[in-house]
Amino acid sequence: MPYMSVMPTVLVGSNVNGRPNYMTAAWATVACMVPPMICVAVNKERFTAQGILENKTFSLNIPSVNQIIETDHCGLVSGARQDKSGVFQSFYGMLKTAPLAKECPVNIECRLFTSVDCGSHMLHIGEVVEIHADKSCLTDGKPDITRINPVIYAQSTYFGVGKEAGKAFSSGKNYKKR
Amino acid sequence: MPYMSVMPTVLVGSNVNGRPNYMTAAWATVACMVPPMICVAVNKERFTAQGILENKTFSLNIPSVNQIIETDHCGLVSGARQDKSGVFQSFYGMLKTAPLAKECPVNIECRLFTSVDCGSHMLHIGEVVEIHADKSCLTDGKPDITRINPVIYAQSTYFGVGKEAGKAFSSGKNYKKR
Repeated sequence: MPYMSVMPTVLVGSNVNGRPNYMTAAWATVACMVPPMICVAVNKERFTAQGILENKTFSLNIPSVNQIIETDHCGLVSGARQDKSGVFQSFYGMLKTAPLAKECPVNIECRLFTSVDCGSHMLHIGEVVEIHADKSCLTDGKPDITRINPVIYAQSTYFGVGKEAGKAFSSGKNYKKR
Repeated sequence: MPYMSVMPTVLVGSNVNGRPNYMTAAWATVACMVPPMICVAVNKERFTAQGILENKTFSLNIPSVNQIIETDHCGLVSGARQDKSGVFQSFYGMLKTAPLAKECPVNIECRLFTSVDCGSHMLHIGEVVEIHADKSCLTDGKPDITRINPVIYAQSTYFGVGKEAGKAFSSGKNYKKR
């Protein structure tokens, strides 16, 4: 089994047969700085895989800890068997075909850059065309983790974010050679 | 700028010119279940990019919160200017050329599957050939997050893992249609 210590919990939004669908995922991260890209691994058998390849667009929606029931529901149920278009209120941005979940504090709208066939999963790499964020979750115009209260995924369990442990590009200045 | 709510803090291990080197990264996740694969985005200009392409092997090492100084140091300093081979004690596994940091509770040894040129960064996808874990961090033979105490990265800040917020593939059973 692959292993990663902690991962973000996201909802992958795609239109499948013209209807919004959301799939819970944790295998997602940033893929590039310039241009800004993200990636997400999706099992080839999933309904979402169909939607991404159909439209060449998708979204990543960042739920808050208080949306765990809806979020986990989207991982339990396949859109092929049950219509999930009503779990969240959908809106569309620039791309018109990547549904964005209104209730999620942050929505990342992506144009498919490429999909890498890895075996059971395709790694979909998407160029970020727009980030939508709820005003109440911003500090100085940027998404603020303490306001978003995102969901961490690890070991089939959801966690909140813990205490600050240090500043990046700063804590290491105290390093002394052994 | 790309955005992701929370990410794991990892140390990318590679041999560069035959010497172990570790680079701090957060843009990493699982890429595939079968076969098990992970991916990590690395700026093309980094010393580590050279090591990965040279050997077609690399490692992801999961540091603990009590290793933040060493971990951040590896993100502040380039191996091109300063020898980082002494920051951690290195050992080698099956692949012989992917250095593993002994002090980190978990080490993921990878054979390069493919590298995707995204722009400023290459997304390196690696097949996991072996996972090494400190016995003190296992529960029932599996890496245990409460024992590992991994480092979350978000907004240029390191965080610990917070409280459990729900069980995956379970919390959603309480979902009721609006």
